[in-house]
Amino acid sequence: TDLLLLPGDGIGPEVTAQVRRVAAKLIPELTIDERPFGGTSFDQLGTPLSDETLATAKAAKAVLMGAVGGPQYANVPRDKRPEAGLLGLRAGMGVFANLRPALCFQPLADASTLKREVVEGLDFMIVRELTGGIYFGSPRFIEELPGGGKRAVDTQVYTTPEIERVARVAFELARGRRNKVTSAEKSNVMDSGLLWREVVTDLHRREYADVALEHILADNAAMQIVKNPKQFDVMVTDNLFGDILSDAAAQLTGSLGMLPSAALGLPGTPGLYEPIHGSAPDIAGKGIANPLAAILSFEMALRWSLGRPDLAARLYAAVERALESGARTPDLGGALTSEQMGDAVLAAL
Amino acid sequence: TDLLLLPGDGIGPEVTAQVRRVAAKLIPELTIDERPFGGTSFDQLGTPLSDETLATAKAAKAVLMGAVGGPQYANVPRDKRPEAGLLGLRAGMGVFANLRPALCFQPLADASTLKREVVEGLDFMIVRELTGGIYFGSPRFIEELPGGGKRAVDTQVYTTPEIERVARVAFELARGRRNKVTSAEKSNVMDSGLLWREVVTDLHRREYADVALEHILADNAAMQIVKNPKQFDVMVTDNLFGDILSDAAAQLTGSLGMLPSAALGLPGTPGLYEPIHGSAPDIAGKGIANPLAAILSFEMALRWSLGRPDLAARLYAAVERALESGARTPDLGGALTSEQMGDAVLAAL
Ligand SMILES: CC(C)[C@H](C(=O)O)[C@@H](O)C(=O)O
Ligand SMILES: CC(C)[C@H](C(=O)O)[C@@H](O)C(=O)O
Repeated sequence: TDLLLLPGDGIGPEVTAQVRRVAAKLIPELTIDERPFGGTSFDQLGTPLSDETLATAKAAKAVLMGAVGGPQYANVPRDKRPEAGLLGLRAGMGVFANLRPALCFQPLADASTLKREVVEGLDFMIVRELTGGIYFGSPRFIEELPGGGKRAVDTQVYTTPEIERVARVAFELARGRRNKVTSAEKSNVMDSGLLWREVVTDLHRREYADVALEHILADNAAMQIVKNPKQFDVMVTDNLFGDILSDAAAQLTGSLGMLPSAALGLPGTPGLYEPIHGSAPDIAGKGIANPLAAILSFEMALRWSLGRPDLAARLYAAVERALESGARTPDLGGALTSEQMGDAVLAAL
Repeated sequence: TDLLLLPGDGIGPEVTAQVRRVAAKLIPELTIDERPFGGTSFDQLGTPLSDETLATAKAAKAVLMGAVGGPQYANVPRDKRPEAGLLGLRAGMGVFANLRPALCFQPLADASTLKREVVEGLDFMIVRELTGGIYFGSPRFIEELPGGGKRAVDTQVYTTPEIERVARVAFELARGRRNKVTSAEKSNVMDSGLLWREVVTDLHRREYADVALEHILADNAAMQIVKNPKQFDVMVTDNLFGDILSDAAAQLTGSLGMLPSAALGLPGTPGLYEPIHGSAPDIAGKGIANPLAAILSFEMALRWSLGRPDLAARLYAAVERALESGARTPDLGGALTSEQMGDAVLAAL
C-alpha cells in the first residue's frame, strides 16, 4: 500500500473521505488502504491499535490519520483509550520528528484573533519531538500514601541521540527556509532542558554553524508566539512543550481546521500525517468539518513520503485558490459542507 | 518588618524604587526593609539567597521581589544562579499558590497584539501551583551513557494534599469573582494529570459544588487563551503548565510591564509578590522600565498580606487614572521614565 488511511473517530471519517477524492484525482495510481483506529477500533476489536493495523502502517509509504477520541471513551482504562492508540502508533512507527506548520493563508489573514499585521505572511514551523519525554518516560504511577491520599509520578527522560536526531531535522529544514532555528526548553529549571540545550548547541557547532541558532525559554516562547510570531522560522522543542506551543501557534491562523502535521522517522520509513484538530464531537456526523487540514496533511505526505513535491505544490496552490474564491466551511465563517469544500479544491486542481 | 523589598537584578531596583515612593505616600507607617537577592546577592555574598534573607522574608508580613537573573550569570553553577535563589525563596516561604492576573486595562485595550474585541474587559486569574511538580521533583540528574552521550531525567511529583490546597485557593477566589474554575492538565497522557483531575473533581464535589468547574487539556488551554480568553474566570494548573500558560496570557494585555503576581502560602504566613516581567538586561540601568507591574504587585500585597484592601483599591484606581491621563513608559509606546510613571501614579493617588 502507498497510503494507509486511518479515519478514526468523530469527524475523522468525514475529513479523510475528502482526502480520498483529492488523491484519486491528483494521483490515480496511488494505492490506498484503510483500517480501523482509535475509538472505532476499540469498539470493533477491543483495542485502539491492533497489531495488524500497526503492521500495515509500518509497511505503507505514508499513513494518514483523521482524528481520535471522544467523550464516550472517558471511562475506558487509559491504555485502551483512543489517545493510547495514537501514542502507540507514533512510538511503533518511530516517528520522532513532528512538523507542525503555523501558517497564515492570505485569504484568511483577518480570521485570526490576532491583528492582521501580526499574522499576515506568517510561516513558521514547529518541530516537536514526538516519541520521548514525559509522554513515554518511566517510572510513572499513582500510589496510595500511607496516611491517606495519593502520590502521582511522571518522568521526563531524554538522551543525547533522541535530542540530536530531532534537532537535525530542524536544522535541515531551516536550510531550505529562512535559515534560523529557535530551540525552546526550560534549561533554567529542568535537567532535561540543560541537556537539550547542550546537545543542540553542540550539533549546531559541529554541523550546522551556517544556520542561525537561538535558545529561548519555553515560557518566553509561549509569549513571543502571541507577541511577535513572525520572528520565528523553525522552532524545535520537546514533546510536552511542543504539544502546548504548537496549539497556541495553531490558533494564530484563525482556525484549527486549516492545519496539517507530519511526523517523520528515519529516512526510508513511512511518515504519519495528521490534521492538528481533534475529533470534534460537537460537529461530528454533520458533514460540516473543514477537510483542509486533512487535505494539507496529504499535501505533506506527497512532499515527505510519497516523493511527489511537484504534486504537493499543485495541491497547495489549489487550496489557496479555493480559499481565494471564497470557499469557507463554518469554522471559517462560511456555510460549505466538507464535501463542498472538497469540490472547491478539486475544481481548483 | 511589614514589607521586605528584594530589588534583585537588572531593572529590579529601578521598579522597586517606585514602590517605595508609592508606599511612603499611601501608608507612611509601613516599615520597609531591604536585602540583597538573586545575582546581586551572589555577587556580594556568594549565594543568590542567604539564610539571613530567607529568615527575614519569613518574618516579614509581605515580601516584594523586583526581578532576578541576567546573562552574566549564565555560567554560574545552577544551584548558585539567581533563578535557584527564587525557587529556594518560593519553597522556603512555602508559597504554593501563585496568583497571576491576566487583565486588560481599558486605556491599553489597543496595545495588545490581539484584536480589541478579543481582549477588551478581560479579567482572568491563573492560579499556578508554585512549590511542587517538575520544578522540585526528584530524581533529577544528567548521567553519562556507557556507549557515549548522556541521559537526563526530571521528575514530576504531585500528592493529593498539594493539589487540594492550591485548588482550594482557586475555588475560594472564584467565589469572589465570576464563580467559575477551569482546571488545566494533561490527564490524557500524564499520571499526575489524572490525579490532578481526580483531586480537583473530588474537592469540588465535597466543598465547592456551587462553583462551576471545567476541565481542559493544557494544550487546548494554550489555544483557548489566544482564541477566546474572556471565557475564563479562574484557571488552576500545575507549576510547569502555569509557567507557560501565564506567560501566554500575560501577552494578551499588551505589555509584560503591566502584570503583577502574588504567591501565597498558608493563612498567616507572608506572601511573595513579584512582577511577571524579568530583569530585562536590555533596558536595565536606563531608568525607563515600567514600574506598574511592581506597583500593582504592591497593590496585591496590600490586599492579600497587609490587610488593607481599601488602600489596594485606591492604588488600583490611581494606576488606572494615570493610564487614562496618557502616562506611558516606552514598553507602552510612550516616553516616560520609571520615575515619571511613579510621579503619575503619586499624582493620581
Ligand atoms: C491526543 C493527544 C495524546 C495528543 C498529544 O498530546 O500529543 C494531541 O494533543 C496532539 O497534540 O497530537
Ligand atoms: C525564573 C524562572 C525560574 C521562573 C519560573 O520558571 O518559575 C519564571 O519563569 C517565572 O515564571 O516566575
